[in-house]
Amino acid sequence: MQQVNWQLDGIVTQLRATREQWRAQNGREREKGCRELPSRHRIRETLELLSGAIFPMRLGPSDLRKESEDFYVGHTLDRALNALHEEVLLELRYMARLNGDKTSEHQAAATQIIQRFADDLPSLRQRLDGDVMAAYYGDPAARSVDEVLLCYPGVHAVIYHRIAHYFYQVGAGLVARIIAELAHSDTGIDIHPGAQIGEGFFIDHGTGVVIGETAIIGNRVRLYQAVTLGAKRFPADEKGHLEKGLPRHPIVEDDVVIYAGATILGRITVGQGSVIGGNVWLTCSVPAKSNITQANIQSGPCP
Amino acid sequence: MQQVNWQLDGIVTQLRATREQWRAQNGREREKGCRELPSRHRIRETLELLSGAIFPMRLGPSDLRKESEDFYVGHTLDRALNALHEEVLLELRYMARLNGDKTSEHQAAATQIIQRFADDLPSLRQRLDGDVMAAYYGDPAARSVDEVLLCYPGVHAVIYHRIAHYFYQVGAGLVARIIAELAHSDTGIDIHPGAQIGEGFFIDHGTGVVIGETAIIGNRVRLYQAVTLGAKRFPADEKGHLEKGLPRHPIVEDDVVIYAGATILGRITVGQGSVIGGNVWLTCSVPAKSNITQANIQSGPCP
Amino acid sequence: MQQVNWQLDGIVTQLRATREQWRAQNGREREKGCRELPSRHRIRETLELLSGAIFPMRLGPSDLRKESEDFYVGHTLDRALNALHEEVLLELRYMARLNGDKTSEHQAAATQIIQRFADDLPSLRQRLDGDVMAAYYGDPAARSVDEVLLCYPGVHAVIYHRIAHYFYQVGAGLVARIIAELAHSDTGIDIHPGAQIGEGFFIDHGTGVVIGETAIIGNRVRLYQAVTLGAKRFPADEKGHLEKGLPRHPIVEDDVVIYAGATILGRITVGQGSVIGGNVWLTCSVPAKSNITQANIQSGPCP
Amino acid sequence: MQQVNWQLDGIVTQLRATREQWRAQNGREREKGCRELPSRHRIRETLELLSGAIFPMRLGPSDLRKESEDFYVGHTLDRALNALHEEVLLELRYMARLNGDKTSEHQAAATQIIQRFADDLPSLRQRLDGDVMAAYYGDPAARSVDEVLLCYPGVHAVIYHRIAHYFYQVGAGLVARIIAELAHSDTGIDIHPGAQIGEGFFIDHGTGVVIGETAIIGNRVRLYQAVTLGAKRFPADEKGHLEKGLPRHPIVEDDVVIYAGATILGRITVGQGSVIGGNVWLTCSVPAKSNITQANIQSGPCP
Amino acid sequence: MQQVNWQLDGIVTQLRATREQWRAQNGREREKGCRELPSRHRIRETLELLSGAIFPMRLGPSDLRKESEDFYVGHTLDRALNALHEEVLLELRYMARLNGDKTSEHQAAATQIIQRFADDLPSLRQRLDGDVMAAYYGDPAARSVDEVLLCYPGVHAVIYHRIAHYFYQVGAGLVARIIAELAHSDTGIDIHPGAQIGEGFFIDHGTGVVIGETAIIGNRVRLYQAVTLGAKRFPADEKGHLEKGLPRHPIVEDDVVIYAGATILGRITVGQGSVIGGNVWLTCSVPAKSNITQANIQSGPCP
Amino acid sequence: MQQVNWQLDGIVTQLRATREQWRAQNGREREKGCRELPSRHRIRETLELLSGAIFPMRLGPSDLRKESEDFYVGHTLDRALNALHEEVLLELRYMARLNGDKTSEHQAAATQIIQRFADDLPSLRQRLDGDVMAAYYGDPAARSVDEVLLCYPGVHAVIYHRIAHYFYQVGAGLVARIIAELAHSDTGIDIHPGAQIGEGFFIDHGTGVVIGETAIIGNRVRLYQAVTLGAKRFPADEKGHLEKGLPRHPIVEDDVVIYAGATILGRITVGQGSVIGGNVWLTCSVPAKSNITQANIQSGPCP
Repeated sequence: MQQVNWQLDGIVTQLRATREQWRAQNGREREKGCRELPSRHRIRETLELLSGAIFPMRLGPSDLRKESEDFYVGHTLDRALNALHEEVLLELRYMARLNGDKTSEHQAAATQIIQRFADDLPSLRQRLDGDVMAAYYGDPAARSVDEVLLCYPGVHAVIYHRIAHYFYQVGAGLVARIIAELAHSDTGIDIHPGAQIGEGFFIDHGTGVVIGETAIIGNRVRLYQAVTLGAKRFPADEKGHLEKGLPRHPIVEDDVVIYAGATILGRITVGQGSVIGGNVWLTCSVPAKSNITQANIQSGPCP
Repeated sequence: MQQVNWQLDGIVTQLRATREQWRAQNGREREKGCRELPSRHRIRETLELLSGAIFPMRLGPSDLRKESEDFYVGHTLDRALNALHEEVLLELRYMARLNGDKTSEHQAAATQIIQRFADDLPSLRQRLDGDVMAAYYGDPAARSVDEVLLCYPGVHAVIYHRIAHYFYQVGAGLVARIIAELAHSDTGIDIHPGAQIGEGFFIDHGTGVVIGETAIIGNRVRLYQAVTLGAKRFPADEKGHLEKGLPRHPIVEDDVVIYAGATILGRITVGQGSVIGGNVWLTCSVPAKSNITQANIQSGPCP
Repeated sequence: MQQVNWQLDGIVTQLRATREQWRAQNGREREKGCRELPSRHRIRETLELLSGAIFPMRLGPSDLRKESEDFYVGHTLDRALNALHEEVLLELRYMARLNGDKTSEHQAAATQIIQRFADDLPSLRQRLDGDVMAAYYGDPAARSVDEVLLCYPGVHAVIYHRIAHYFYQVGAGLVARIIAELAHSDTGIDIHPGAQIGEGFFIDHGTGVVIGETAIIGNRVRLYQAVTLGAKRFPADEKGHLEKGLPRHPIVEDDVVIYAGATILGRITVGQGSVIGGNVWLTCSVPAKSNITQANIQSGPCP
Repeated sequence: MQQVNWQLDGIVTQLRATREQWRAQNGREREKGCRELPSRHRIRETLELLSGAIFPMRLGPSDLRKESEDFYVGHTLDRALNALHEEVLLELRYMARLNGDKTSEHQAAATQIIQRFADDLPSLRQRLDGDVMAAYYGDPAARSVDEVLLCYPGVHAVIYHRIAHYFYQVGAGLVARIIAELAHSDTGIDIHPGAQIGEGFFIDHGTGVVIGETAIIGNRVRLYQAVTLGAKRFPADEKGHLEKGLPRHPIVEDDVVIYAGATILGRITVGQGSVIGGNVWLTCSVPAKSNITQANIQSGPCP
Repeated sequence: MQQVNWQLDGIVTQLRATREQWRAQNGREREKGCRELPSRHRIRETLELLSGAIFPMRLGPSDLRKESEDFYVGHTLDRALNALHEEVLLELRYMARLNGDKTSEHQAAATQIIQRFADDLPSLRQRLDGDVMAAYYGDPAARSVDEVLLCYPGVHAVIYHRIAHYFYQVGAGLVARIIAELAHSDTGIDIHPGAQIGEGFFIDHGTGVVIGETAIIGNRVRLYQAVTLGAKRFPADEKGHLEKGLPRHPIVEDDVVIYAGATILGRITVGQGSVIGGNVWLTCSVPAKSNITQANIQSGPCP
Repeated sequence: MQQVNWQLDGIVTQLRATREQWRAQNGREREKGCRELPSRHRIRETLELLSGAIFPMRLGPSDLRKESEDFYVGHTLDRALNALHEEVLLELRYMARLNGDKTSEHQAAATQIIQRFADDLPSLRQRLDGDVMAAYYGDPAARSVDEVLLCYPGVHAVIYHRIAHYFYQVGAGLVARIIAELAHSDTGIDIHPGAQIGEGFFIDHGTGVVIGETAIIGNRVRLYQAVTLGAKRFPADEKGHLEKGLPRHPIVEDDVVIYAGATILGRITVGQGSVIGGNVWLTCSVPAKSNITQANIQSGPCP
C-alpha cells in the first residue's frame, strides 16, 4: 500500500478547472443535477434481457424450462421495457435541453415509443427467424439453426441492428447508437442504426463490415467480412466541418451477394441479383444481375 | 417508475404463437423439458479456468503462489473438465434428438471425450509453448515471452483454437464453435474450429483474419491482420442453398509468411517457404519458395 | 455430476513436468513466490475508473450528481493511481529480475512514474477534449459531442492510447501494452503504445486499423477503418529472428486524411495536408498536399 | 505477498489422513463421487425466491410492477421448485446411502414431495396472512401490516417454519433443519421444524425463543422473547447417549399468551386461554384460563 | 434437470386469487403501479455506506488512504443521502396512500428530512465517539477503542439506533424500523427506534436485549445481555386488539447499570446511579442510587 | 433523482473537524498512510475458506468431487493462510504503533504465527470431529453427524472459537475477536476468544450463551441456550474505569451439564460431573457431582 501522497487536492482542482473551461465553451454550465445521458452499461443488460425474451429457449437462462417459458418472457419483457423507457426518457430530456426546447411531454413520448416497440416484438421475432434461416442456408459450415443463433456474430449484429433501427426511426438516436456500438464491439460489424435492411439478411464472418447511415439494403442480401457500404465524399461546409445528414451510402437491391473486402461507395445502386466479387472497389451503379469482379471492373463499369 | 401498463398479456401470447409457429415449421414441438443447448456463458468461464490451469503463473489468479501451483491446477482442472463434460453431454443429446437417434450412450461418450482431452493437456501445453515462442520471435515489438502470452490477441486465438479443434474432431462441433466465436469476439480473429494448424503458428495484430473450416496450415506459419484463407466458390444445390462439407479452403505449407490483407481462396496450395505479400489476391496454387506480391501477381501466376 | 475419476494426479504431474521443462529452458526456475506480472483484469478495472475520473458526468457512474463531482473524482483517482502504482511496480520488479538487475529502487521509480502521470491528468483531459471535437466535426453522422464520447470506438481507442503511450514512454511497456490490447479487443483498433500521435486525432469506424510502434502522426489527422500504418520489411538476424526496435513505420504529417483500407508501409512520410484514398497501397513518401488514389497511384508515385 | 512456503504438502497429507481415519470410523469410505448433501447456501437463495413468490409486491424485487406480477410469480416459482427438488433429491439419496437402502425411487419421491408443496402454496399464503394479522394486532407498536411483514423477525421465522415443517413431515428432515437454522441465524428464534403450530401465531421480539421438536401449539398463540418450550429431562440409553424421538415438549392450547423469558418444560399442557407471566418456570400442566405469574407459582401449581 | 411439469398455471392462478382476496379485505386493490415500500436490501447497503462515511478509516473500505479521506466521505455521503431520500419518499407516499391523504408535498418533505439529517452528521459522529469511549471503559476485556468499534455488537446497535431514532422522530417510522431490525438481526439487540437514549450508552454482549418504543434512557447507562426494558401490560380495546401508542416502558436515569437478564417492566423510573442486579424482575420505580439484587428484591421494593 | 444540493462541502468539512478533534484527543494524528486495521469482511471470507478446507466434502463447495479433494484443500489453505497472514501482520503493526514500539520484526512474527496455525490444522480437525460427535450424541433431535455439522449453530460457534482462541493465545487478539464476533452474529453465541475449552464441547440451541474471557471449561461439557459464564463484579480503578485482565470467570470441570438460562458468575468452580439446572443463579463453587436446581439452591449452597 502506497505511503506517499499524490497531492490530489491540486489535481482535482485543476481537473475541475479544465472541465469548467470545456463546459463554458460548450454552453454546458450547470449548478446541480445528475448525469443526464443514457448508460451503455444499462443498455447492454437490457439488450441481453430482450434477446432472452425473444428467443427464450436458446438465448434465455440456461436453466429455463418449457413450462415456465411464458412466465419468464413476461417478467423479462417487463424489466426490459421499463429499462428502455428510462433510457429513452433520458435521451428525450437531454435532447430537449440541448435544443433549448422547454416543452415537457417527454414522459408521454417515451411511453408511446416503448409501447409501439413492445407491440412490434412478435413481428420482430418473425423477421429475425428469417435472418437465422438465411444464415443457416448461406453458410456451408452451419450445421443447425441453433448453432447459427448461438454462435454467429452476423446474426448477433442483425438482432441488435433491428432493435437499434427502431429507436433511430422514432428519434432516440443516442440509444440506437449505443445499441449498435455494443454489437460493433462484440462482433467487429459496424452497422449504423440508420441503415434500412430488408428480410433474410446475412453477414458471414463479419469482422470489418461497415454499413453507413443512409444505406438501403433489399431482401435476401448476403455480405462477407470487411465489406464497406460507405460514403464516397464528405462535403465540408465553410468552416471545413463535414456536412451532416445527406443520403450518401449505397442502395443494394434484393438478392445481391457481396464478397469479402468489397468496397461500395456513394449513393449508387447495386442492381437486383448482382454478385460483387471480393475486394472489388465500386463507386458507380451497376444494373441487375451484374457480376462484378476485380478483373472485369478494371475495364469498367465506372468511369 | 413507469405507471402505465404495457399490455404484456397480449404480447406474451403473440410471442408464444410466433414461437410455436416456428417450432412447428422446424419440427421442434415439445411439451416439457428444459434448455438443451450448450451455454456460451458457461463455456467462457470454463475456458478461462482452463487457460489458468495450463499457464498457472501467467494466466491463473493474480495471487497464485508457486507453492500451491499444483493444488490450484488440479482443483481448477477438475472444475473445468466437469463443466466441459456437461456441455459436451448437452450437445450429444441435442444432436441425437435432432437426428432422431434413440440410443443413449451419450454419458459414456462424453466421458471418453473429456478423458482424452484431459490426457492430452500436457502435450497441448507444449504445443502452445511453441506458439508463444513463434510469436516472440515473429514480432520485432515483442519484448518478452510473457508479454506475448498476456497481451497478444493472436496467441489468445491460437490457445482457444487448439482447444476448439479437439472438440470439433471428436464430434462436439457446437461446443467447438462456441469456443471459436469467443476468441473471435475477443480478438477479431475468426478461425473455424475445423481448420488444421501445425506447430509454431503466429498471427500478428490479427483483426479481420478469417481461416475457413477445411484449411490446412503447416508448421511455423506466420499471418498478419486481415488475411483470408477462404473458399472461392459456394456451390449451391437445387434449392439454391449452399452445399455443406466439401474441402474448399487453402493448404498452406510449412514456413509460409502471409502479409496483411492477403486473400487466398479455394482449395489451392501455398508451397513451403513462400511469402505472400500484403493485399495479394491469390486463387491458384503457388510452388515452394514463391514470393508473391501485388506487383508480380498482375502478370500471373493465376490465369 | 460426473461419477468417474479423471486420473487428475497423473495429469497434474505431467503438466508440472511440462512447466518445469519450459522454465528450465527459459531460465525461470523458482522455489517460491507468487505471480509477478501485471494483471489484465485489474488494469481493465483501473482504466474504467480513470475514464470516469477524467469525464465524470459522461463516463462516470450513472447516478453521479454534479454536487459531488469533485469528491467522486478525488476518491476515484486515488483508487486508480494506487492500482496503477501496484501494476507498474510489478512490472519494474519483473523486468529487473529478467535483466538480472539487483538494484531495488523500484518503489521510488514507480511512485515517480505515477506522480507525473497524475500531474499530467488535467492536460490529458484537454487533449482528449480536442480529440472528441475532432470526432464530432469529422463524422457527418455525429449529432453531439456526447454521442461521440459515449459511443465512438475511435474515441475510446484514443483515450486508452494516450494513457498507454505515457506508460510506454516511462518504461512500463507491459502495462502500456495491456492497456493498448484492452482497447484493441473492445474496438478492433490496434494502436501500439509506442506510436506518437498529435492533437485532434480521429479514427472513424476503426475496425482493422493497425498503427505500428514507431509511427509518428501529426495534428488533426483523420483515419478510417482498416487503415494500416505498418512496417515494410522485417529484417531478420542471423538466427532468422526478426530484429527489434528500429524505426520502421510511417510519419504522417498534420492535416492528413487516410481513407478506409489504405496500407502505408515503411518509414516514409505522408506530407502535410495529403489525402490518401481508400485501399491505396503506399510504400514511398509523398509530398505535402498530395491526393493519392488507387487510380493515380498506378502510374506512380512509388517506383 | 508472502514469500515463505507453508509446507502445504505435508499439511494436506495429514489432513487427508485425519479425514480418512474419521471416515473409516464412520463407515464413509468412498473412492469417487461428489458432495452429496443439501447446500445451506442454495437453500437460502431458494427461500428468498419463495418468499418473493408468496408475497410478490412486498418481499419480491423492489422494481416489480403490478402488471407483471403473475409472470414474476410463475417464473420464480419454477426456479424455486426445481431448486428445492434438487436439494430434496440429494437428501433422499444421502439417507438411502446411510441406511444401506438400495432402492432408487428417489427421483419420483422427490417429485411427489415438491408437487404437493407447490399445490399447497395458495393455502400456505392464506395461513401466513393470518400470522401477519396476528402480529399486527398483537403488537401495540405495529403501524401497518406491511411494516409487520417487512420488519418483524417473528413473522420471518414463522414463514420459514411453515415451509420447514412441510419438509420435516414428508421426510426431508435435513432440508427442513437447514431452513429452520437459516431463520434462527437471522432472528435468534429457534423453532425445530418438527413443532406443530396452529393459525394466527405471533412471536414478538423473539430473540432467544426455543421451541422443541415435539411441541404442539394451538391457534392464536402469542409468545415473547426468550420463551422456551423445551424438554424436561433427556433420558440416556445404556451407553449414556440421549434417546431420540420421544414426545418431550409442551402442548400449548388455543389463545395462550406466554410472556418473555418463561420456561415451559416437558410434555405438559398449558390449557386454552391461559396467560403465563414473564420468567415463569413451569414444569407441570395448568388448566384452561390459568393466569400463572412468578408470584403465584411459588405456592404451586407444580409440586 | 426436472422433466415433469409442476402445473404452474393453476398454482399461479390460485396464488393470484389468494392475493386478490387479501387485497380486497384490506382495501389494497390496484390496477397498476409498482412496489411502493422501502427496501430492506437497499437500506442495508445505505447504512453500510453511512457507517463508512462517519468512521472512514475504521469502517470505510479497507484500501482507503488518509489523503483521499474527504473525497471518499463526500462521495459516499452523496450516495447515501440520495438513497435515503428515495426510501423516505417511498414511505411518505405510501403512508399518504394508506391515509387517503391527497396532498403531494412529499418530495419537499423528504428533502427537508434528509437535509436535516445531513446537517446533523457531525454532531452524530461526536455522540457516537462518546458511545465508543463508554464501551472501551465499560468492558474490562476491551483493549482499544478500535477493537470496540470494529467488533462490539453493542456499538453496532447503537450506531444504527441513533440513525433509526432520527427517522422515527421525523415521521419515517418504517425506514426507522427497518434500520433497527437490521441491527437486531446482526446483533440480537432489539432497540425500538422510538427509544430515547442519552450519551455514552453501552450494551455489553447484548444478545437478547429488548428496549421498548417509549423507553427513556439517561446518560452513561450500561446494560448487559438479555436485559428487557419492556411494557408491563398490554391493554386491549373492545375487539381484543392491543392499544397502540401509550407510554408504557421504563425511564432509566443517568449512570444506571443493569446487569444481565434483568427485566424492568412498565412506565417506572430507575433512579439516577442505581445498580440493578442480574435476573432482577422489577416492576416498580426505585429511587436514585438503589442497589437492587434478586436477594433484596424478595422483600420489596415492589408490592 | 434528487435535484437539490445537500451542501456537502460544509458537511464534509465539519466531519473532518470532528475526526481531527477525536484524533487529537486520542493521539492518532497522521499525515498519510492507509487503513491499518484488520478487516471484518476479509476475515469472514477467510474463515469460510478455512471451514471448507477442514471439512471439504461437507462445508466445501457444493460441486467438490472426491477426486480433487486434496487439490481443493491445498489451494484453499494457501489462500486462507496468506489472507490470515496479512490480517495478523496488520494487527501486529497496529499494536506496535499504538504502543510506540519501533521494532519491525512483525513480518517474521506473523509468518511464525501462521506457520504454527497451519501445522496444527490436522489436530484441530480431530478436535472438531470430537465436538461434532458430542453434538450428535448430546441432542436427541440430531439424526446424523452431517446434520449436526451443517446445521447446528453450536458447532459453528465452536469451530470459530477454536480458531479464534489460537490467535488470542499468540497475541493477535483483534483478529481473534473479529472471528468470535462473526460467530456471535451468526449464532447468538458469544464466546470470548480467551476462553479455554476442553474436548467434546457442545452448546445446544445456543442463542444468548455468553462465555467470558477467563473462563476455563473441561472435557465433555454440555451447555444449553442463554447460559452465562460471566464475571461477578467489575472492580473499577480510581477514575471509575473497570480494571482489565483479572481472572474473573468460572472454571467448569469435566462432564458438567448446564441447562438453559443458568447464570454462573465469578471465578468459582463447578465440580466434575455436576448438573446445573435451568435458570439457576450460581455465584459460589460447588463440589463434584453436584445437582443444583432452582429449588435446592434457595437453601444454599451459596451464602
